Amino acid sequence: MSRVYNFSAGPSMLAEWVLNQAASQMLEYGNSGQSVMEMSHRSAEFKAIITECEQRLRRVMGIPDHYRVLFLQGGASLQFTMIPMNLLVKGHADVIHTGQWSKKAIAELNKIGRAEILASSEDATFSYIPDVDKLTYHEDADYVYICENNTIYGTKYKKLPQTGNVPLVADLSSCILSEPIDVSKYGLIFAGAQKNMGPAGLTVVIIREDLIGHAKSDTPSMLNYQIMADQESMFNTPPTYAIYICNLVLQWIEEVIGGLDEIQKRNTQKANLLYNFLDQSHLFSNPVNPKDRSLMNVTFVTGNEELDAQFIKEAKANGLINVKGHRSVGGMRASIYNAMPLAGVEKLVDVMKQFELNHH
Amino acid sequence: MSRVYNFSAGPSMLAEWVLNQAASQMLEYGNSGQSVMEMSHRSAEFKAIITECEQRLRRVMGIPDHYRVLFLQGGASLQFTMIPMNLLVKGHADVIHTGQWSKKAIAELNKIGRAEILASSEDATFSYIPDVDKLTYHEDADYVYICENNTIYGTKYKKLPQTGNVPLVADLSSCILSEPIDVSKYGLIFAGAQKNMGPAGLTVVIIREDLIGHAKSDTPSMLNYQIMADQESMFNTPPTYAIYICNLVLQWIEEVIGGLDEIQKRNTQKANLLYNFLDQSHLFSNPVNPKDRSLMNVTFVTGNEELDAQFIKEAKANGLINVKGHRSVGGMRASIYNAMPLAGVEKLVDVMKQFELNHH
Repeated sequence: MSRVYNFSAGPSMLAEWVLNQAASQMLEYGNSGQSVMEMSHRSAEFKAIITECEQRLRRVMGIPDHYRVLFLQGGASLQFTMIPMNLLVKGHADVIHTGQWSKKAIAELNKIGRAEILASSEDATFSYIPDVDKLTYHEDADYVYICENNTIYGTKYKKLPQTGNVPLVADLSSCILSEPIDVSKYGLIFAGAQKNMGPAGLTVVIIREDLIGHAKSDTPSMLNYQIMADQESMFNTPPTYAIYICNLVLQWIEEVIGGLDEIQKRNTQKANLLYNFLDQSHLFSNPVNPKDRSLMNVTFVTGNEELDAQFIKEAKANGLINVKGHRSVGGMRASIYNAMPLAGVEKLVDVMKQFELNHH
Repeated sequence: MSRVYNFSAGPSMLAEWVLNQAASQMLEYGNSGQSVMEMSHRSAEFKAIITECEQRLRRVMGIPDHYRVLFLQGGASLQFTMIPMNLLVKGHADVIHTGQWSKKAIAELNKIGRAEILASSEDATFSYIPDVDKLTYHEDADYVYICENNTIYGTKYKKLPQTGNVPLVADLSSCILSEPIDVSKYGLIFAGAQKNMGPAGLTVVIIREDLIGHAKSDTPSMLNYQIMADQESMFNTPPTYAIYICNLVLQWIEEVIGGLDEIQKRNTQKANLLYNFLDQSHLFSNPVNPKDRSLMNVTFVTGNEELDAQFIKEAKANGLINVKGHRSVGGMRASIYNAMPLAGVEKLVDVMKQFELNHH
């Protein structure tokens, strides 16, 4: 077996510790006589798993008691619909537009209510985050919406909008669990699991209790946070195996790594290694406003499409896969989520150094 | 390791062949250097898996070319909303009401349009299927809706409604892949995967092409069959690992078992063993109209709640788990999906025989 370093934007790497646990428990979990995949979601065995998963997430992220944790399906894309369906009362929300994912969120929001776009970084191919202190938020907005880490462009909010009494709703799909955060600053956090939490097919929503219960009566049951919260994510069969893997990922963060402070330290070390190399390189450069750089997704270009393609090919030959940038921006992207080891980033930098020597 | 016989209504047993494949490929799929769980859904490796899964399903079920296969999320429960959102044009559909799952489908349909209930078996605790030949279907209905196998009560349609030009929409969650069917008799078939297809978190929709494209323009993208079909189930990240397991289940049916004719033969043998025992038992009985008996879910009672509870306990002590009936009807239920071996049903009958000797 020869495992590659997978720089995919997601789904992406999982810790080998997690995969080894999953492999060894595939035919029998504990003494249950069954795989987790075979367990009735109403069984005591599975209820213990989903409860443990929620408790771990609460401990690891420091989620206050007046927030509910929901395990849902449909990815961030379904949240683009569920959020306005559940949170719009006055009918409009403020949005800061920082790329393709906020664009999709705006499109879905506008089917249900009205998005007021406070700022956009589209003028510079979303290579920066607008200054959140210079914006005028609507006091009567139902919420303010941001995509906190922009996977495609490699940008991240380093400061959150100060929205007063208006709840902040944030898509943390590609930065959740990458560093400690203050959950109490948000009204609602959501994330697709397939980057830092586990496999695709699970969406985690962390929602302040007072934001639950405002959906219209004709809201489809599956899209109503109230029903999902009342039924503790068991209104219907939840994605049981994905929840089990998420629990293993959280166990790895908590018990093997030692929590989010340590995760942040490691992630910072990995990102610094890459950004420091890029900043002194004569061939490669990072197109993002330095103060808005993502800790998770590092974009870079040579400025020459042929060279880019050649580098992507050489990286792959060296066991570094999925370093191709998103089709909408081109170039390269290294997604260095929690499970990417430092050794993977070191190898990437080595391959970049050699490539620079050969092509400069 | 001591694996149990799991009679859960779903999620339920998977073939050990499937679990062994999944365990052995957990850290590396083929020579890809990665787990399927880590694969980018846009990678060539994963595209090969989802393509193979669709092709196998088409071969195994004999799905005609003018039907599309969609791999979605949200279970049958989200289909209760997606179906009316996409298929209602005139605004109403005929429904035959055969239990809790059709009840939920009716409730969601009525949020979007109007359900015309043609018949109901609620008068006898859903222990039979209404005679579909005696019903008057509305010629102007957008579709006729049935739940073909009723997991909770152990009933199944042995004859489909003859709906003329009106498309038949059927929930096959608990009977798909249990026997050969003629897909061309349906307009739309849907099934949650967690009974006969794989893990929870994957929903398969098989839809006749002409039924795609009728959703209103403000339909959320994630709930629009047209978008899902145009993007080949890749509008957003699909539940990749669940699709991979579904492909393994289909490979097991096709290559290990030998297809749906053989599956049907085995399922009939298992069900007959159980029903024949029940029909001659002086203690246990099956409450379902004999001609409407399910091949997948066999319900039975002693007529005494204390004895029922005692039997469930003794079954568990013998490694036969989840034989408790649904809370809404009580008694016992043995769900004997494709992956339940004959030996499991034989053991169940043995335990029932012994229990009858001890308590009669």
